[in-house]
Amino acid sequence: MKGWSTMKVAVIMGSISDLEIVRKAVDVFKFFGVEYEIRILSAHRTPDEVTEYVSGARDSGVDVIIGAAGKAAHLPGVIASKTVIPVIGLPIESSFMGGLDSLLSIVRMPAGIAVATVGTNASENAALLAVQMLSLRDGRLADRMVEYRDNQRRMVLKNNEFIDL
Amino acid sequence: MKGWSTMKVAVIMGSISDLEIVRKAVDVFKFFGVEYEIRILSAHRTPDEVTEYVSGARDSGVDVIIGAAGKAAHLPGVIASKTVIPVIGLPIESSFMGGLDSLLSIVRMPAGIAVATVGTNASENAALLAVQMLSLRDGRLADRMVEYRDNQRRMVLKNNEFIDL
Amino acid sequence: MKGWSTMKVAVIMGSISDLEIVRKAVDVFKFFGVEYEIRILSAHRTPDEVTEYVSGARDSGVDVIIGAAGKAAHLPGVIASKTVIPVIGLPIESSFMGGLDSLLSIVRMPAGIAVATVGTNASENAALLAVQMLSLRDGRLADRMVEYRDNQRRMVLKNNEFIDL
Amino acid sequence: MKGWSTMKVAVIMGSISDLEIVRKAVDVFKFFGVEYEIRILSAHRTPDEVTEYVSGARDSGVDVIIGAAGKAAHLPGVIASKTVIPVIGLPIESSFMGGLDSLLSIVRMPAGIAVATVGTNASENAALLAVQMLSLRDGRLADRMVEYRDNQRRMVLKNNEFIDL
Amino acid sequence: MKGWSTMKVAVIMGSISDLEIVRKAVDVFKFFGVEYEIRILSAHRTPDEVTEYVSGARDSGVDVIIGAAGKAAHLPGVIASKTVIPVIGLPIESSFMGGLDSLLSIVRMPAGIAVATVGTNASENAALLAVQMLSLRDGRLADRMVEYRDNQRRMVLKNNEFIDL
Amino acid sequence: MKGWSTMKVAVIMGSISDLEIVRKAVDVFKFFGVEYEIRILSAHRTPDEVTEYVSGARDSGVDVIIGAAGKAAHLPGVIASKTVIPVIGLPIESSFMGGLDSLLSIVRMPAGIAVATVGTNASENAALLAVQMLSLRDGRLADRMVEYRDNQRRMVLKNNEFIDL
Amino acid sequence: MKGWSTMKVAVIMGSISDLEIVRKAVDVFKFFGVEYEIRILSAHRTPDEVTEYVSGARDSGVDVIIGAAGKAAHLPGVIASKTVIPVIGLPIESSFMGGLDSLLSIVRMPAGIAVATVGTNASENAALLAVQMLSLRDGRLADRMVEYRDNQRRMVLKNNEFIDL
Amino acid sequence: MKGWSTMKVAVIMGSISDLEIVRKAVDVFKFFGVEYEIRILSAHRTPDEVTEYVSGARDSGVDVIIGAAGKAAHLPGVIASKTVIPVIGLPIESSFMGGLDSLLSIVRMPAGIAVATVGTNASENAALLAVQMLSLRDGRLADRMVEYRDNQRRMVLKNNEFIDL
Repeated sequence: MKGWSTMKVAVIMGSISDLEIVRKAVDVFKFFGVEYEIRILSAHRTPDEVTEYVSGARDSGVDVIIGAAGKAAHLPGVIASKTVIPVIGLPIESSFMGGLDSLLSIVRMPAGIAVATVGTNASENAALLAVQMLSLRDGRLADRMVEYRDNQRRMVLKNNEFIDL
Repeated sequence: MKGWSTMKVAVIMGSISDLEIVRKAVDVFKFFGVEYEIRILSAHRTPDEVTEYVSGARDSGVDVIIGAAGKAAHLPGVIASKTVIPVIGLPIESSFMGGLDSLLSIVRMPAGIAVATVGTNASENAALLAVQMLSLRDGRLADRMVEYRDNQRRMVLKNNEFIDL
Repeated sequence: MKGWSTMKVAVIMGSISDLEIVRKAVDVFKFFGVEYEIRILSAHRTPDEVTEYVSGARDSGVDVIIGAAGKAAHLPGVIASKTVIPVIGLPIESSFMGGLDSLLSIVRMPAGIAVATVGTNASENAALLAVQMLSLRDGRLADRMVEYRDNQRRMVLKNNEFIDL
Repeated sequence: MKGWSTMKVAVIMGSISDLEIVRKAVDVFKFFGVEYEIRILSAHRTPDEVTEYVSGARDSGVDVIIGAAGKAAHLPGVIASKTVIPVIGLPIESSFMGGLDSLLSIVRMPAGIAVATVGTNASENAALLAVQMLSLRDGRLADRMVEYRDNQRRMVLKNNEFIDL
Repeated sequence: MKGWSTMKVAVIMGSISDLEIVRKAVDVFKFFGVEYEIRILSAHRTPDEVTEYVSGARDSGVDVIIGAAGKAAHLPGVIASKTVIPVIGLPIESSFMGGLDSLLSIVRMPAGIAVATVGTNASENAALLAVQMLSLRDGRLADRMVEYRDNQRRMVLKNNEFIDL
Repeated sequence: MKGWSTMKVAVIMGSISDLEIVRKAVDVFKFFGVEYEIRILSAHRTPDEVTEYVSGARDSGVDVIIGAAGKAAHLPGVIASKTVIPVIGLPIESSFMGGLDSLLSIVRMPAGIAVATVGTNASENAALLAVQMLSLRDGRLADRMVEYRDNQRRMVLKNNEFIDL
Repeated sequence: MKGWSTMKVAVIMGSISDLEIVRKAVDVFKFFGVEYEIRILSAHRTPDEVTEYVSGARDSGVDVIIGAAGKAAHLPGVIASKTVIPVIGLPIESSFMGGLDSLLSIVRMPAGIAVATVGTNASENAALLAVQMLSLRDGRLADRMVEYRDNQRRMVLKNNEFIDL
Repeated sequence: MKGWSTMKVAVIMGSISDLEIVRKAVDVFKFFGVEYEIRILSAHRTPDEVTEYVSGARDSGVDVIIGAAGKAAHLPGVIASKTVIPVIGLPIESSFMGGLDSLLSIVRMPAGIAVATVGTNASENAALLAVQMLSLRDGRLADRMVEYRDNQRRMVLKNNEFIDL
């Protein structure tokens, strides 16, 4: 989807079952008017397509890549090994210790290749982090982020009206 | 320290005992010519100073903040709650389950406030991630990252000469 | 709510979703006639309001603060960093290893700033602990606690009548 | 040891091997002028002596009890079951998952009997928490705590002079 | 319940909510004709009653005690500290890491006081273990155990008839 | 079931409750035309039958054995101790930390006796691994595996058509 | 070694590296005058010898068996599957999560075959538990256990003289 | 190194620091006369070289590949995604929960791409497993494995002579 910003975020997920989790990231991109594109590509089942997509990402105008994967979640690390674009790793919750497998497979990268990891299923934060990165180039996104923050601040405070204890 | 880049990274650590871990981040900044400043500020023991420093960071030219902390590592989250600048969380290894406490206290942020988490003690990666973020504004940093990657690639391959099995 | 005691407990929760858990704490305060007030304030989404509330707590007659939060549960620690009033941390169970994230984020505080931690979702115990603290000033609360204990002792023993094995 | 305060903290540890950990708690009591007494009593090896000591504690002027224990650390819970005085649980680090056994054995108390848990080996915080509880009766301790906090705040800030990066 | 054997097993559970788990132990006692008695007694909410019951157990003919408890499961250890009768600890599954809290609180006893631990919710095995202990005095129980084993062996083998793959 | 290949895989599961998990392995064998046989045999409840079956496996034409078991999952290790045929261990997910017990009981074999472990409930992968081993003797299976991989590659890519974000 | 008791405990350890751990069990047997025999037999490397030894144990006068093993610690379970004699499992601490692998491999036995598990490296308790079992036949051992308990009670109390805080 | 067998195993390790661990695998290959080749190649720092090596492996006569890696150990999975040759994953112990990160990153592969995982640092077993796979083509290796097993069986039994308890 095109946004008013000239920058673009790519979201690659390892499986179509991650789609619902990713949806909240898309809501963020829409709020900020950030262009995005979504791909389902598996590090293990479609390694060549991952390589091909990531290698061409910079040239096709992608500024940040979010990789979403679960279990032995190699996707974000594999993406990061093939590009110098910043990569955000989004661990998908598994049935194993609340997704500790997904988290560790993403966050424990060796020295030299970094992945910016967020919490399991934290797609809203993955998207916000992408926007914060983009705001380094486009200051209007930082201003919009102040607004986003203010909205959620007011929502929290508003909830105090509903306490019935 | 001043770098040739016009951008600046702030590194805040919760305790002077984290200094040795942070040193490798500084080496990265020097390689890339990125300006940095270091502070020891504790989220719990100096909360006002953290607030004061972070609130003024954007105006004093800080583009990315790295927060390093261990155990109940609130520092990166507290920083992130006070600025829209991207915040990188660097968990410091503790004596508790290899630093799982530090990692979870940083990576499990609630929806709405993101922290880009790297592995425990992974200060080199925290710095590389900061540089990748900065490269969104200054493309020369991306080119330099390609060089950095090539160096480490050659170092790995060079090691094949020393196999004596 | 006003109680016959002249002392007051404040309960701050990070999210309105914690309300059901907190309800059992309120039952305890009512039994003991302890005044309480409830707030929804997030360490990350409303940091200024947390600071403001906690800074003024002692002057507005608050004697003990309970902070309830889940995941990267910074709230109790952030509260404790801003007041010398005793702070009780109530970790809210998350989907991650039974709330190990919430527990560690609260209990692993650095030396110098203490948080009295109870078990995940253990709001009854958080409230009982607050009452025990208050009983240091008002001995009648200790006497009432003996009564509370006796009630639960009899309930346990009563259950022996229902064994049908 | 007698302090200028008229209140007293008892520290019970399960084994003489915990003595070094407890030493830091004693330093805190000395700073605050709080009277304390130390006992080595095991919940499992001297159950009768634990019962006897705890049952008489209130009458002999004890206001708060700290129980320090490791592994299947039943001591704080056993103490709490025999008195309405507030009980602080200090888990001692074991060789098992950084003391997760000690922590869970203390913090996961059933509804009805509360233990105020601090981090593994966090004896300084156990003592500070005891002082904060006592300050509910003696406001001078709260003032002294402000001073204590100010000291550690200055020590953290002072460390900024030693950064050599 | 009276059995043909002259020996008796006591089952103490910390809460009436453990009753369904304990039921399978009773089935075992009935199969082996072993006398048993069941009590609901909490280490924390009825400590005096636990002491009283356990102290008198040997005189009232109890040969083995099973203690069932969850979370900070002190019951089996508390029982073991008050008697030289063999004590079997039955951890009840909690919502925390599959009952790791219950398991560690029971199995990590200090040197000197032993508890024979079985798996979480493994009440059948707790009862079988009790019977095996009793068989040291009454060899007929060992013979009956051979029969029990043979039954389950045949049940496993019988299942091969139902494979439809 | 007979396949066109002259090789055979045996699947031994510890309990009939594992049958649904094993079903996906059978689908794989059918795709590859690999002969298989299924047994329910418990390392603990039918130890003699396990020994007997495994000792005779090589002579009856079994080339690879898959052992599926949960909790204290000794079955694959016990099988491996009785044969030099390659053994694949399939941990069955339990209610304990997502099956960490099953996984560790299988993968942490002592030096000298190897078990090829796959993820919990990963019966498809257990079967694929068996086929890959067999392909060392029958190259046609390797060619068929290329085809299998290509199928799943196309399924992943096909899913991109269903993205509605 | 012969003891004055007519009963015998067998200790089987999986590796000679467990010998130092087992030594404390032997001290217990000597104190109680209980006959014992020690074997090094591996469930995986010497399965036939384990079967042979355990099958003959009852006839050669063995009343209780302790199985000591680490990592994928199958030994106690394998022993228990071959005899109705009570089996005590002694997990040996490994480098993996403080021996959680050893503990789970022993304590998570399936319904039907019980192992009485003690803590990692808790050989003193394994031996005390064996003695408690034997005392069901020989009451003098129970009397001696009272004495043993009294010794350790006095040692704990004696330590109070050495507190220098 | 050339062996008398016509088959070949490739060992790829992610870092030269894994060399000592791998050494025991080489000892196994020498015992069995199996040809092997060793490479240091990182999934993240040299992704192209990994792809190139693995893609050509089958043609250059490699029959089995062992991938050794630690932390976010993607190497074995990345290898497996590029070849149908059986891949053995050898997790290298890290400072994090005994290498749970390495283990989970390897063993939790998604359905469709299998990795045969052994325990952390279990290089001897990785090599034995490779030999067992090769023995499916060359029966002489199976016979040699019987001999290898017999050697270790005798070593275990021999140790019984050194018991001094």
